[in-house]
Amino acid sequence: MLNFEVINPTRIIFGKDQLERLPQLINDFSKKKRILLAYGGGSIKSTGLFNKLMIHLKDFEVVEFGGIEANPQFTTLMKGVELAREKDIDFILAVGGGSVIDGVKFMTGAFHYKGDPYEVLKRTEGCVFTQAISFGTFLTLPATGSEANSGAVISRDELKEKLTMGGPLFFPKFSFCDPTVVATLPKRQLANGIVDAFMHTLEQYLTYPTDNLLQERQAEGILQTLIEIASEVIEHPNNYKLASNLMACATHALNGNLRCGVPTDWTTHMIGHELTAMYGIDHARTLAIIAPRLYENQFENKKEKLTQYGKRVWNLQGTSEEIAKEAIVKTEMFFQRLGIHTKISDYSADTDHIAEVIKTRFIDRGWNAMGERQAITPSDVESIVLHAI
Amino acid sequence: MLNFEVINPTRIIFGKDQLERLPQLINDFSKKKRILLAYGGGSIKSTGLFNKLMIHLKDFEVVEFGGIEANPQFTTLMKGVELAREKDIDFILAVGGGSVIDGVKFMTGAFHYKGDPYEVLKRTEGCVFTQAISFGTFLTLPATGSEANSGAVISRDELKEKLTMGGPLFFPKFSFCDPTVVATLPKRQLANGIVDAFMHTLEQYLTYPTDNLLQERQAEGILQTLIEIASEVIEHPNNYKLASNLMACATHALNGNLRCGVPTDWTTHMIGHELTAMYGIDHARTLAIIAPRLYENQFENKKEKLTQYGKRVWNLQGTSEEIAKEAIVKTEMFFQRLGIHTKISDYSADTDHIAEVIKTRFIDRGWNAMGERQAITPSDVESIVLHAI
Repeated sequence: MLNFEVINPTRIIFGKDQLERLPQLINDFSKKKRILLAYGGGSIKSTGLFNKLMIHLKDFEVVEFGGIEANPQFTTLMKGVELAREKDIDFILAVGGGSVIDGVKFMTGAFHYKGDPYEVLKRTEGCVFTQAISFGTFLTLPATGSEANSGAVISRDELKEKLTMGGPLFFPKFSFCDPTVVATLPKRQLANGIVDAFMHTLEQYLTYPTDNLLQERQAEGILQTLIEIASEVIEHPNNYKLASNLMACATHALNGNLRCGVPTDWTTHMIGHELTAMYGIDHARTLAIIAPRLYENQFENKKEKLTQYGKRVWNLQGTSEEIAKEAIVKTEMFFQRLGIHTKISDYSADTDHIAEVIKTRFIDRGWNAMGERQAITPSDVESIVLHAI
Repeated sequence: MLNFEVINPTRIIFGKDQLERLPQLINDFSKKKRILLAYGGGSIKSTGLFNKLMIHLKDFEVVEFGGIEANPQFTTLMKGVELAREKDIDFILAVGGGSVIDGVKFMTGAFHYKGDPYEVLKRTEGCVFTQAISFGTFLTLPATGSEANSGAVISRDELKEKLTMGGPLFFPKFSFCDPTVVATLPKRQLANGIVDAFMHTLEQYLTYPTDNLLQERQAEGILQTLIEIASEVIEHPNNYKLASNLMACATHALNGNLRCGVPTDWTTHMIGHELTAMYGIDHARTLAIIAPRLYENQFENKKEKLTQYGKRVWNLQGTSEEIAKEAIVKTEMFFQRLGIHTKISDYSADTDHIAEVIKTRFIDRGWNAMGERQAITPSDVESIVLHAI
């Protein structure tokens, strides 16, 4: 087992009808009792959630900041930062899915930053967030796990950039995970959420055998649960059993536990981010497009773990080689059964040069040796994308 | 899935050769740079761990407090509290297994308490610890999970009492989990540790089906891993793969995760604590004695989950009834294979009236309806103990 260090101080309040805990939890962090309520496209108003929240926020001065989009944009978020500074708030409640929560993480760090916060995202030398205001979340879309970790992905579409940030300052102080929100979601978002959680798990599992018997079983438990509930929860999102398991899986897939003591890959995400930046394809769908092709490209490196995955998660039988190959097929079919297309050409007709462009971007950033064995080169990335067209 | 709230802010530093992190971690909490180093019977000196720690503690004034015994005694711990007050320390480093760590949790709360801290353990009305000094741990015995939770069990042998305490103040700030310590442990302690982790998991799993598919799989993953490594790790405690999985299982079995969204039982522990208080039987062994008899007594209430456990963890086949019964047998045989006797009479010839005495103690404390269905009565407890003699 590899050495690791892990901490996750976020308080999870999981279940329905728990909002009476909200004012007390915010009070622990907000002295001014003046908070920013950040959300996305406004579905929190049509679903009635906004009004429910406001009932429990009656003792606070609430500054609204809506309009955080999917793949939250730097320019949008900076407007929120300015508003937060102007109104002198000292706490942000993020109400939304991964995009809103990621966006709020950035805002809490940018709030106190003296220079241009984009320097921090670009990792300009010497530029880091050294303080952040406190924030909590109310999750409306189980998918990214952002409610239970300290990472974020921020986009700048005009530069076709998608950049990551994170660190110990950016754990939510608390996250309400209420599975009843699942009933309000369109099928497309549910399918995306399932794939997102599934792929977060695979990125931390489909590497090489590690002697970490427990962590492997925990990853397999998430994958098995997602497979068991996936089709049903999309058809019956108001079934609380299914909804709560989906939400639990998404949180557990990226709360920091699965990475403990094991190598991780994350190259599917790195390539996927490029597809979102270039074509605007939903994040989860980019993962469904890239992963099967990456596993084929890295077949020899991942063969042992693919076989274990095929046996334990998909109950496949045969030779190791057969099981490993079939496991990739099963994975792609699983995504397709959820209504997710797994070719770039399903999303855009303009696929010329895409593989080369992405390869060049990787080279420009110095990303020359990726994956758990540092064996994935920019040329492999080009080949993976070519096969994914 | 049941509603739940969970938080666990302990930093886990897992692996070997990580002690260079120690001074920095203590610095975050100790302004006076004067700390108490608490330990047990002194094996940390014979194994060389003490000297290793002192190298990394050279910038601190270290006050030693050794001699915390198994089932840590109130009177012993109060000596530590007095020493800590006298020397004006502001941080405790607990180096040991669950007894030392539990004892230190009590000491951190008792340190500031104005009255007799035993009032708090006795839950005398109005008596609570409202503050605690910070502490960290270096785990030397994987078993209780105390390194990753905020609970403790404190004994007072002269009163034959074993009392629990806990709460958010009592999470370690950090815990070093170094699997190489496993190689230094006697077989008896290793077997105890395995049973302890196994039973912590069963207490949170062998109840009734809960719709919590993910949590059930996570519990099963711990049980499967323990079964896979148990016999081997006792024979080969210096095998790092086995040792690290044992340590990971013990931590995960009681870090607060398994209880999320599920009912729990814990009656085996309640009865077991009485056997330790009365006979001094090792804690883990009391669980191995009681659990099979409790599952027989509660067979109808636990049948569904026993069947799932038998199928998934022990790969049993047959009718549901057969599988459920066989699962109990398999569990007891598993304990016995580790060298653990599962009858009270294996430990003491003096078993007269024991069942009645324990029944009376339960009645006196008002413990009239225990277990996940509140279906276990003091008469059931009497019957369970009678069958365990």
